[in-house]
Amino acid sequence: MTWEFLGAGAGLLAIALAIHLYRYVTSQDSGTEKMRDIAKAIQGGARAYLRRQNLTLAAFLGIMAPVIGVLVGITHGTVYGVSIGIAYLIGAGCSTIAASLGMMAAVRANVRTANAARAGLKKAFPVAYYGGAIMGLAIVGLSLLGVSLIYFICRSGLGWTEVEAANIVLGFSFGASALALFAKAGGGIYTKTADISADLVGKVELGIPEDDPRNPAVIADNVGDNVGDVAGMGADLVDSYIAAIAAAMILGAELGGGILTVLPLLIAAMGLFASISGVFLVQVLMRGDPGAALNGGTFATSGIFIALLFAVTYTAGMSGNQWLGVFLPTLAGLGAGIVIGMTTDYFTSIDRKPTRRTAEAASKGAAINILTGFSYGLVSIVPSILGICVATLAAWKFAELFGVNPFYGISVSAVGMLSIVATIISADAFGPISDNARGIAEQGGLGKDVMEVVDQLDAQGNTSKAITKGFAIGAAALTVLALFAAYTHLVDIDLARGINLISYPVIIGLFIGAMMPPLFSALLILAVGRNAGRMVEEIRRQFREIPGLLQGQGRPDYKKCVDIATRGALRELLFPCSLAILVPIAVMLLLGREALAGCLAGSILTGIIFALFMANSGGAWDNAKKYVEAGALGGKGSDAHKAAVTGDTVGDPFKDTAGPSLNTMITVMSLVAEVFAPVLILLWR
Amino acid sequence: MTWEFLGAGAGLLAIALAIHLYRYVTSQDSGTEKMRDIAKAIQGGARAYLRRQNLTLAAFLGIMAPVIGVLVGITHGTVYGVSIGIAYLIGAGCSTIAASLGMMAAVRANVRTANAARAGLKKAFPVAYYGGAIMGLAIVGLSLLGVSLIYFICRSGLGWTEVEAANIVLGFSFGASALALFAKAGGGIYTKTADISADLVGKVELGIPEDDPRNPAVIADNVGDNVGDVAGMGADLVDSYIAAIAAAMILGAELGGGILTVLPLLIAAMGLFASISGVFLVQVLMRGDPGAALNGGTFATSGIFIALLFAVTYTAGMSGNQWLGVFLPTLAGLGAGIVIGMTTDYFTSIDRKPTRRTAEAASKGAAINILTGFSYGLVSIVPSILGICVATLAAWKFAELFGVNPFYGISVSAVGMLSIVATIISADAFGPISDNARGIAEQGGLGKDVMEVVDQLDAQGNTSKAITKGFAIGAAALTVLALFAAYTHLVDIDLARGINLISYPVIIGLFIGAMMPPLFSALLILAVGRNAGRMVEEIRRQFREIPGLLQGQGRPDYKKCVDIATRGALRELLFPCSLAILVPIAVMLLLGREALAGCLAGSILTGIIFALFMANSGGAWDNAKKYVEAGALGGKGSDAHKAAVTGDTVGDPFKDTAGPSLNTMITVMSLVAEVFAPVLILLWR
Repeated sequence: MTWEFLGAGAGLLAIALAIHLYRYVTSQDSGTEKMRDIAKAIQGGARAYLRRQNLTLAAFLGIMAPVIGVLVGITHGTVYGVSIGIAYLIGAGCSTIAASLGMMAAVRANVRTANAARAGLKKAFPVAYYGGAIMGLAIVGLSLLGVSLIYFICRSGLGWTEVEAANIVLGFSFGASALALFAKAGGGIYTKTADISADLVGKVELGIPEDDPRNPAVIADNVGDNVGDVAGMGADLVDSYIAAIAAAMILGAELGGGILTVLPLLIAAMGLFASISGVFLVQVLMRGDPGAALNGGTFATSGIFIALLFAVTYTAGMSGNQWLGVFLPTLAGLGAGIVIGMTTDYFTSIDRKPTRRTAEAASKGAAINILTGFSYGLVSIVPSILGICVATLAAWKFAELFGVNPFYGISVSAVGMLSIVATIISADAFGPISDNARGIAEQGGLGKDVMEVVDQLDAQGNTSKAITKGFAIGAAALTVLALFAAYTHLVDIDLARGINLISYPVIIGLFIGAMMPPLFSALLILAVGRNAGRMVEEIRRQFREIPGLLQGQGRPDYKKCVDIATRGALRELLFPCSLAILVPIAVMLLLGREALAGCLAGSILTGIIFALFMANSGGAWDNAKKYVEAGALGGKGSDAHKAAVTGDTVGDPFKDTAGPSLNTMITVMSLVAEVFAPVLILLWR
Repeated sequence: MTWEFLGAGAGLLAIALAIHLYRYVTSQDSGTEKMRDIAKAIQGGARAYLRRQNLTLAAFLGIMAPVIGVLVGITHGTVYGVSIGIAYLIGAGCSTIAASLGMMAAVRANVRTANAARAGLKKAFPVAYYGGAIMGLAIVGLSLLGVSLIYFICRSGLGWTEVEAANIVLGFSFGASALALFAKAGGGIYTKTADISADLVGKVELGIPEDDPRNPAVIADNVGDNVGDVAGMGADLVDSYIAAIAAAMILGAELGGGILTVLPLLIAAMGLFASISGVFLVQVLMRGDPGAALNGGTFATSGIFIALLFAVTYTAGMSGNQWLGVFLPTLAGLGAGIVIGMTTDYFTSIDRKPTRRTAEAASKGAAINILTGFSYGLVSIVPSILGICVATLAAWKFAELFGVNPFYGISVSAVGMLSIVATIISADAFGPISDNARGIAEQGGLGKDVMEVVDQLDAQGNTSKAITKGFAIGAAALTVLALFAAYTHLVDIDLARGINLISYPVIIGLFIGAMMPPLFSALLILAVGRNAGRMVEEIRRQFREIPGLLQGQGRPDYKKCVDIATRGALRELLFPCSLAILVPIAVMLLLGREALAGCLAGSILTGIIFALFMANSGGAWDNAKKYVEAGALGGKGSDAHKAAVTGDTVGDPFKDTAGPSLNTMITVMSLVAEVFAPVLILLWR
């Protein structure tokens, strides 16, 4: 039996299910005319955003693919070069198609969820959840199908070696990371541009409420939730997912091949089968509490996955107890994911000490509120980093103990953590759908009972989003460690001798790499500020020039705002993204492959730290504000509330722009190193 | 000729000059009765702080010295163990005596500067400058004298090997770092406790102006400037200074000894001679612009140092062109120091883009102001880190080129950067003296002309302080790299083989080390918040219970406030400091010496990044506020001003508590590793 067909089969099944769910969701009633109007505007904005993003991405790919193809072609032969260039395009294409589909599903599910909420929570929940599951199943399914087919074609069709075929998979992964960078960092700038400028002119200058249809930026703001949390997060997680598979396959191929090469595909297939079952189980488990259903679904998925994992590793035909050297590291990865998710929940939950203390600090003013949330964000890195350390240690030791190469152990632990990613993305995408549904229900005037239902969904959505953020960062950490191990193989570093930490290239590389994530964060935050400035001008212009707009008689030009936010976001992306691509190449050219290894290691360290701290500080400020708004410490309108709003505004680009983009940035840096370093070594020889 | 006598001679000369300057400063007239009253209260507060700090330090030393003595005694023999314990105590003692003397000089120079300002800038400047120079000369002189004598006694008196004697110097350095930790981190908590709580009750709740004598916390606030910027910064810089010398001596001794061992002492002696000349030149160069005089003094000192350095390295009797392998790395270190100082100046100067943009952002609200200053602080790490990288590369390559061990090259480049440290500390201590003088002149009602003079001094003092902060961080970076190189020698790691970056102990060590500086920062910031909470209670109590206090008739209990801030600061210090000491030991015990090397490397990376970013963000917010207060963007009382004040309050613990304590923390972690790791290795064998 050809193992890779299991991967392709799981992928196809997931895609079929996604299509089925899309039909289910779109067959639901989309409510009153007013609701449909709002939903149409959001859909139009989403389409406009996607069109421009995909055009820019196409231009970017149009440059990158030939560069990769030609460089690899010169050093490794034309056919191989062309193949990797094509794999790159397919990788970007699969992610883009799936992300676009997922986002269009989400902006259809939102209004239908709001409408279903009129019949109660039990009717509304499946619409929102299945709406999110479309994204999860489509993007993971299409990716796994792509990886499996590409590997099969290269091996069986073209008759290449396992190492060569696995490297073509790496090209596919690099393509997927291109979309992730655009969707996550560009989407992050977009969503906060819209959010901040809508608030600055609407709430602060004109005193009109949030989500008010008179505000020309309101649609851009609604679209932003979907851009950041549906397309962005999905692309980011799948980027890690494919990269982890590619790294493990390369290591497997380099370490002897055979079952070791296809095992990562196999583990991923089991994870996807488990996730597919999980999607059904969530609805079965739904007995009134959406949180319990979602958590139950995740635990059930994990349980099914562990059983399937046991089955495949045990029967994979490895010698002696070697299967335990794969099985246990995979479990360690899964466990680390759960620890990091729980930590994120603790540090950002509205019921826990960090958020409560941050809220109490708000009663002493905005500065103390900010300092407190900032500090708890920094403290929050401790359990997550210890989780990553324990997973690394466990993966290494278990692998070693049962005769498996420890680097391979680490890479399968990354695959293990990410195997249930379809479930995670589904739960995450549920967040913005519920959020949008709440907005539509409010604007559509659906009454108090309906609001209660959508509020409950929205609250659960926020928790899911927070947990997903932590999970995504932890997954990126393990993935980048796996890529790091694969890198050392690709550039022919003797693993027994290793890379000497106490040598100037490595020390300088570490410093430069460590500098990158903070710099990238700063550039993205400054970009949000600049872009919001442009958008503020446009909103003011519309209020000035469109007659009767403030009185509710004119119709604002929503499209123009969406367009400004989109164009600005994509333009601002250029410089930081170029840095992520060019710095590893420059380090390689100036200081060599050991320095580049140091640079990657440095970027992992500060990348994880800044990503965790920014995501969790932002989450704590956000929920501290919600805690005050729920009536604590004087409630809405109090000084504490004003201070908490300031904290929340500081946290917005932390948690939705800079923090989550760092995962993607460090993955991109690692992939650049893997794809270009072996080429540059040959060119310079 | 015995070279170490040059070090002792330079030390004695510096001490003699410090005593002379102390007499000069105290012989000046201390002004009106009102001024003397205020000054006396500050002096009393400073004494109270110093007494309690030194008592706590004594208790700490009383535990640490026997622990070190016994552990080293068991593994390396009783006499050696006792000696290192004594060296530890002497190191702590020298720094403590010098820091206490320097601080008492500063709190006498402040009022005399204010009085001299009545006769004009040219009369006031030398009082302030010499007042600061007492600190610089005393602490550097006493340290160099101590190091030279200890080395001489061990080598010539006890007849030990160079390696053994250099290790006793390391004990001395470890002792100095104990004071640095207390003065810098404890002092940092103290000064911001007083500052924030004085503002919260005085300015915000009661609406009385800053520095108002009715505020019970006003003296604690004035004392705080001296604690943080005189004692703290002096102790921190000297901590790096001695550590750099000790690391270079150890490496020199291990790499063959002879001139290599004593050369660091010699370079330091030349630097101190140059600094002594520089102190005189500053007054000669003072033609009306204090900034030009201070900068001129620093450049003159550097010039003299380079000439002396050339003389000693050229005549030191090294074979062939080897002297260039010491001379050029030393210059590279000095150059890096200047680059980092200039960067700090650019990113925090009131006339430059980062601060201006941060101020402009304040007109869009506190959140945008904070995000902008935060981002520029992150961007500011780039030139400094590149400076450190270039210095590392240059030191390594020049040393290698001329036949000197590259690690030795890096360690002398750290010594080179720190050689002119007496000049730097003098210019830095000038800052709080001028700041205090301004406060005393205002409270003493000395009139507009005098205020103009002290304002000019104060502005220059702020620039000096900012540049010193950058310099201190850069110096710590190179020092810790030198300590890192020495560490690998001390734990017998084969330098040719090195430490393998791609092994689980090193990767886990890197993660744990990298986690420490952000955690330490967060704990200190949270400590400031808690301590300020206690102090706010006390201020409120005094206003409630002391009759007529608000009306200016009662006398506040300044001492009580000083005491609360002091006790709280020292208590809050316990947990973060224990972490800095225990984490390296735990890593060593659980994961071994390679993991500890990774841990040190990780702590250097994020330590430097967080220190630079926090210091520079804090500086930018501070000056953005001053820019608005000078009349820009609506000036005092405008919304932009309120936003800028919020930014400044966030920045206060960044730049005065957490940021600058990180230098000390990473130095302490490295010294803990050096002192304990060789012992633990032997104990575990």
